[in-house]
Amino acid sequence: MHLVRVGCRNALCGEQNAVSGFLENLRNGKNMAFLVLKDASGRLQVTIDKILRPELAGLIEKITIGSVVSVQGLLVENPSVKLGGCELLPDQITIESLAEPLPMAKNANIDTRMDYRWLDLRSDQNLLLFKAQTYMLECLRSFLLEREFIEIHTPKLIAAASESGAEVFELSYFDRKAYLSQSPQFYKQMAMAAGFEKVFEVGPVFRAEKSFTHKHATEFTGFDLELSYIQSFHDVMRLQEEMLASMLKKLAERYGEEIRRVWGIEIAVPALPFPVMKLQDLYHALKERFGYELPKEEQTDLTAEAEKLSFEYTKEVFGHEFLFVTDFPKDKRAFYHMRKDGVPQGYDLIWRGVEITTGAQREHRHELLRAQAEEKGLNEDVKFYLDFFRYGCPPHGGFGMGVDRLTMLLFGLGIKEASFLFRGPNRLTP
Amino acid sequence: MHLVRVGCRNALCGEQNAVSGFLENLRNGKNMAFLVLKDASGRLQVTIDKILRPELAGLIEKITIGSVVSVQGLLVENPSVKLGGCELLPDQITIESLAEPLPMAKNANIDTRMDYRWLDLRSDQNLLLFKAQTYMLECLRSFLLEREFIEIHTPKLIAAASESGAEVFELSYFDRKAYLSQSPQFYKQMAMAAGFEKVFEVGPVFRAEKSFTHKHATEFTGFDLELSYIQSFHDVMRLQEEMLASMLKKLAERYGEEIRRVWGIEIAVPALPFPVMKLQDLYHALKERFGYELPKEEQTDLTAEAEKLSFEYTKEVFGHEFLFVTDFPKDKRAFYHMRKDGVPQGYDLIWRGVEITTGAQREHRHELLRAQAEEKGLNEDVKFYLDFFRYGCPPHGGFGMGVDRLTMLLFGLGIKEASFLFRGPNRLTP
Repeated sequence: MHLVRVGCRNALCGEQNAVSGFLENLRNGKNMAFLVLKDASGRLQVTIDKILRPELAGLIEKITIGSVVSVQGLLVENPSVKLGGCELLPDQITIESLAEPLPMAKNANIDTRMDYRWLDLRSDQNLLLFKAQTYMLECLRSFLLEREFIEIHTPKLIAAASESGAEVFELSYFDRKAYLSQSPQFYKQMAMAAGFEKVFEVGPVFRAEKSFTHKHATEFTGFDLELSYIQSFHDVMRLQEEMLASMLKKLAERYGEEIRRVWGIEIAVPALPFPVMKLQDLYHALKERFGYELPKEEQTDLTAEAEKLSFEYTKEVFGHEFLFVTDFPKDKRAFYHMRKDGVPQGYDLIWRGVEITTGAQREHRHELLRAQAEEKGLNEDVKFYLDFFRYGCPPHGGFGMGVDRLTMLLFGLGIKEASFLFRGPNRLTP
Repeated sequence: MHLVRVGCRNALCGEQNAVSGFLENLRNGKNMAFLVLKDASGRLQVTIDKILRPELAGLIEKITIGSVVSVQGLLVENPSVKLGGCELLPDQITIESLAEPLPMAKNANIDTRMDYRWLDLRSDQNLLLFKAQTYMLECLRSFLLEREFIEIHTPKLIAAASESGAEVFELSYFDRKAYLSQSPQFYKQMAMAAGFEKVFEVGPVFRAEKSFTHKHATEFTGFDLELSYIQSFHDVMRLQEEMLASMLKKLAERYGEEIRRVWGIEIAVPALPFPVMKLQDLYHALKERFGYELPKEEQTDLTAEAEKLSFEYTKEVFGHEFLFVTDFPKDKRAFYHMRKDGVPQGYDLIWRGVEITTGAQREHRHELLRAQAEEKGLNEDVKFYLDFFRYGCPPHGGFGMGVDRLTMLLFGLGIKEASFLFRGPNRLTP
């Protein structure tokens, strides 16, 4: 007896089975035809003796690669069959859906792959990638649910053009304008003022930026959280590093071997705590180690080059893939970051040389927050947000993280290949 | 020893504690002051002897209801204290955030409550509602993850004005137009053509409808799934009823008692299978039982009144809260529903007299699907979608369900009160 999984079923060797799958391969000889069926659980060979089964021979002529077929027949052991040592001898074959000739070669360029994303996604690699991403999110959520976080769903349609300087999509909303939310920031903070204490959200985030890098998209999936009664932003960092380490550990346990086999990639489980450096110390170290130097007045934020070098440095010095960078100057941070002696109480988290998070303790005191908003020239647009802090709000902090970017870094890809369907300035289809 | 949970901490009776919370109540007497602090885990009394602690007496004069305070002191047993038989005798009180006078009375009207939603959400009822909603989603997801579903995140920015007749929001996307997705329908079907086999998505759904009912919103959270290799739409119904019954059972176990206490509501765990009726049979039954009759030509869909009466009927006849209705005529169903002898292979699910789902087997054969689209006058707008079916696609089906509507029905509310932040034609703030 031998179990073969095809068509979401456990096909049983030595018995009659009904299976379905995509036709991945077809060898149609004079007397024999060999079909390879594929579904999400694996592959199965179907062997047709055309002499014995003349009624199936005609059907084999019509069938095309990519078609979906259902097959009924006896599954028998055959040690010479590479796919699990089994083959299905069909009594009946039904074409569920006949494929036109596939329009895309296996190694098509990225634009063609995006045009036919549903065919691109048919590979073992991509199926595994989205299984792994599903499990990543499951792990991140479990971690928070165990800690009594509440899941929220904040509106993406908003009345004012939001927090940051980044560009925002505008739409007409009945008789007025609305905008698409660039982040659930304001609303997860609203949940703090509501006494929800600990919240998270997984949802789309929209950025009307004309960026054409390998890591920017106009729409992506954000993973955001916020929690109350923290002592400092270090509490936020601790939560994030524990959450990420826990997720990567579980991911390695469940999918490590398969990812190694299918992708040739190792999942590294990070040690705790993650290394932490102040921005100025990092620039100092990059100069010492790599001779990388920026004019002092540009050392106010991390350049893409500095992020990249920081990965080399972090690997060498800390034996780590993650790096927290703190003590950014206030002109480069959002107005709602709490400040202590003028220093924003927040951080960036760099993974493999790419920023994946900005986190911070927020300013929860209405008067101070309003002053910081005014200092940045924000007034009417943030008024509704400032109101959240008028009637009492606990000290709190949180962070946001891009799910697609996390996936992209895990698999060593660009953002297009890590998204289910990429959206960019020139890409709105399929 | 006595554990009191406040400020996400387990305050220990007989020991020094540091707790934080919202000031919910204050009785400021001549010699004594009593504060009630509240956080997500409960309430705690803080008792101040103003004679013994003159330095705290001044602070008590300043403090306002809604303010967030941190208190350090000894937690002692006192049987006369209603809140857990404990009171905190403070050494130190810090005002973390001073509240302005609260702008909203406890029984304010619904619009005022929506204006100050973050204050409205501070009630025990609302906190519990969102804890329960969090757990509902956790249960629904676990059910699917155990069955190897893949979680997807489909784009909300789309190039064509989508599937249904319902109104769609339009926005300018760089140099062209884009639209907000009314449903992940097309893209979860794309995942079927990609061989993902079983997928689900939880995400926002946008409807530019000028509806002012108690159950419609312009943005809400959709719960969508799709699965391949089904035999008929009955497989979809079976999955949905099992998923809902499993969720309600777990919800009753974890939150049943608390919901009874705080909301005065019983969670009914439904028996399996759910009752099923054909649309025509239902109309016939409603006439027989309630004398409710529609002209034959209007019996092509369920009216709100028919939905409501169907609940009475379902309770009486089946002792059930759910009802599957099948065999709708094809003019009232989407073009992508599979038809058999002209009858759409789908259903509506009615819970407590409100439609919560439309589900169906989809037409997966390109030629038939194209013909059905053309019959409904759809051409260019669905071309990209029809392409998904050109290169092979398994038989499949699925459904969509509104998370807010589910929550609303569970708690016997309107949609405004069941959403974290309601969005309607006249409501885009906060």
